[in-house]
Amino acid sequence: MPTTAKAYAAPSADQPPQPTTIERRDVGPHEVRIAIAYAGICHSDIHTARGEWGPVTYPIVVGHEIAGVVEEVGSAVTKHAVGDRVGVGCMVDSCRECANCQQGLEQYCLNGNIGTYASTGRDGKPTAGGYSASIVVTEDFALKIPDALSLDVAAPLLCAGITLYSPLHHWGAGPGKEVAIVGLGGLGHMGVQIAAALGARVTVLSQSLKKQEDGLRLGASAYYATSDPDTFEALKGSFDLIVNTVSAPLPMDDYLGLLRTNGVMVQVGAPPEPVSVSLGSLMGGRRSLAGSGIGGIPETQEMLDFCAEHGLGAQVEVIPADRIPEAWDRVVASDVRYRFVIDAKTL
Amino acid sequence: MPTTAKAYAAPSADQPPQPTTIERRDVGPHEVRIAIAYAGICHSDIHTARGEWGPVTYPIVVGHEIAGVVEEVGSAVTKHAVGDRVGVGCMVDSCRECANCQQGLEQYCLNGNIGTYASTGRDGKPTAGGYSASIVVTEDFALKIPDALSLDVAAPLLCAGITLYSPLHHWGAGPGKEVAIVGLGGLGHMGVQIAAALGARVTVLSQSLKKQEDGLRLGASAYYATSDPDTFEALKGSFDLIVNTVSAPLPMDDYLGLLRTNGVMVQVGAPPEPVSVSLGSLMGGRRSLAGSGIGGIPETQEMLDFCAEHGLGAQVEVIPADRIPEAWDRVVASDVRYRFVIDAKTL
Repeated sequence: MPTTAKAYAAPSADQPPQPTTIERRDVGPHEVRIAIAYAGICHSDIHTARGEWGPVTYPIVVGHEIAGVVEEVGSAVTKHAVGDRVGVGCMVDSCRECANCQQGLEQYCLNGNIGTYASTGRDGKPTAGGYSASIVVTEDFALKIPDALSLDVAAPLLCAGITLYSPLHHWGAGPGKEVAIVGLGGLGHMGVQIAAALGARVTVLSQSLKKQEDGLRLGASAYYATSDPDTFEALKGSFDLIVNTVSAPLPMDDYLGLLRTNGVMVQVGAPPEPVSVSLGSLMGGRRSLAGSGIGGIPETQEMLDFCAEHGLGAQVEVIPADRIPEAWDRVVASDVRYRFVIDAKTL
Repeated sequence: MPTTAKAYAAPSADQPPQPTTIERRDVGPHEVRIAIAYAGICHSDIHTARGEWGPVTYPIVVGHEIAGVVEEVGSAVTKHAVGDRVGVGCMVDSCRECANCQQGLEQYCLNGNIGTYASTGRDGKPTAGGYSASIVVTEDFALKIPDALSLDVAAPLLCAGITLYSPLHHWGAGPGKEVAIVGLGGLGHMGVQIAAALGARVTVLSQSLKKQEDGLRLGASAYYATSDPDTFEALKGSFDLIVNTVSAPLPMDDYLGLLRTNGVMVQVGAPPEPVSVSLGSLMGGRRSLAGSGIGGIPETQEMLDFCAEHGLGAQVEVIPADRIPEAWDRVVASDVRYRFVIDAKTL
């Protein structure tokens, strides 16, 4: 029998989320029901709910940074037990058959993975995300949250954490490498911590020096304001890897000029409009402009274990659900240090 | 005492090269004098001489695809002997001290390498290229041409060959890899041969099917016309590596859509104007847009040895020097299969 769950849903593109009740399906043999403790607020939630990334079905329950406790397991479940601390990120399933899924690259599922919200589940119904009291997912897409991580701090790792960990890991951030993180927001503040813990020397490139103290405390060795044109002169040819967390269009050639020979600039956020790139900027030093989206399931588990081992987590501001509308406005205004997390008890 | 050498020099941006005589310096202790046998005609020669890539000093002798025979060696030369068959490519020296030079990446010399023409030599004089009867270079930048390669066929390898070999090798073209070469011209026809010899499956993406027979003969397994929009639908997500030899601006997102997960598109030619790129095209499958320029000295030797071992060489049309003006016009019109090579005896 389906269970009801308290939730916050956006009734339309131009209305903020409001309290409601949704149905969650019965737990299938390979599924678990998670009592959600915390859900992070990601800018994607807002873009999606406001229809800025294409049409969606309303009312919509967003949220893909989910941390909670298993409260029911299906008859065939082997990976999790009632009481286990688990998380769910941006995907709740994938085809599991394509070459990418078989390599643990479910984020690049060739048949399209099933998003935690704004997607259609295997049951044919729209998926509903983490701004709710519970969720039912296949056991394979529930990640174990190590004891060393508290659930509020862990929630944002499921999107912000893995989105930065994956490119940093894939492109070899580590000892002897110079890494720049562009933007010190929800994504960037995880990037600084992870890159530093991987052993790289980290520089933050932020619009202003407003958050410099935070950046250095999080593990950066240097901090530059990109509003100062001298920055691009001073840092020319400095970085092995730049991870750009800013979704607004940037002057790409200026940033590409900061790369060393063989350097890579990776986009983890993308403006909807195309950007202009001088290909000569790439040819000069065998440079690359690349993109990366979240991470696969095995890599997400690896990231959680890595964060637990190194004592990393999101810097969170826990809020009651009735402050979601205000929090959304503040996220849009970049006025949060560094992630809002909804306390699901308050739904 | 400096030696004179017959040459062809462009007297100004708007005049074709004309017969002249230039001075070549005395051979220094570490230098060799090469009697040039053949010089390939690269589109870069034309861009440079016509001032399309910035102002140059006239008269200018271009040419950076040089094959010949050592006719004099300096007192301290150990690498080459009189009579050796050697080649010179796009560089005649570099700083030799920076991190890149020390790794054999002289093409990315951090202090700027010395171009074979349109550059300033260590003697403070403008360098003059291969459209001449002889050249004096440091022994370290003269490459050995294996006996299996005839000099006319070898000349274009020094630019066109290494420009394709370097990215194909760097990005792992080999067995099990799907490689596309965009454009079947001087660069592309070497790319097809080299990628196939490296063991990759090769597809040519050319504007039309006009040269399809050539492409398949050179080693391609498939050939598509990019003027047919169906091509971009049919080949979506097909390639591990695309090497783009076309310098005109292309619809980048269409090409990036042809890459598999983790695929890389490498530019070896670049339009002067910036191109437009949707960063979402990159994020979808951890794709990269990269650039590459010629290759280093050790890699150029490796390429020559590889070509000799696999029986590869440029398809050349050998011309007397008085046909250079006509050949330039035909290069600009893409009317050559696939490289003009000047017979230096006719200067």
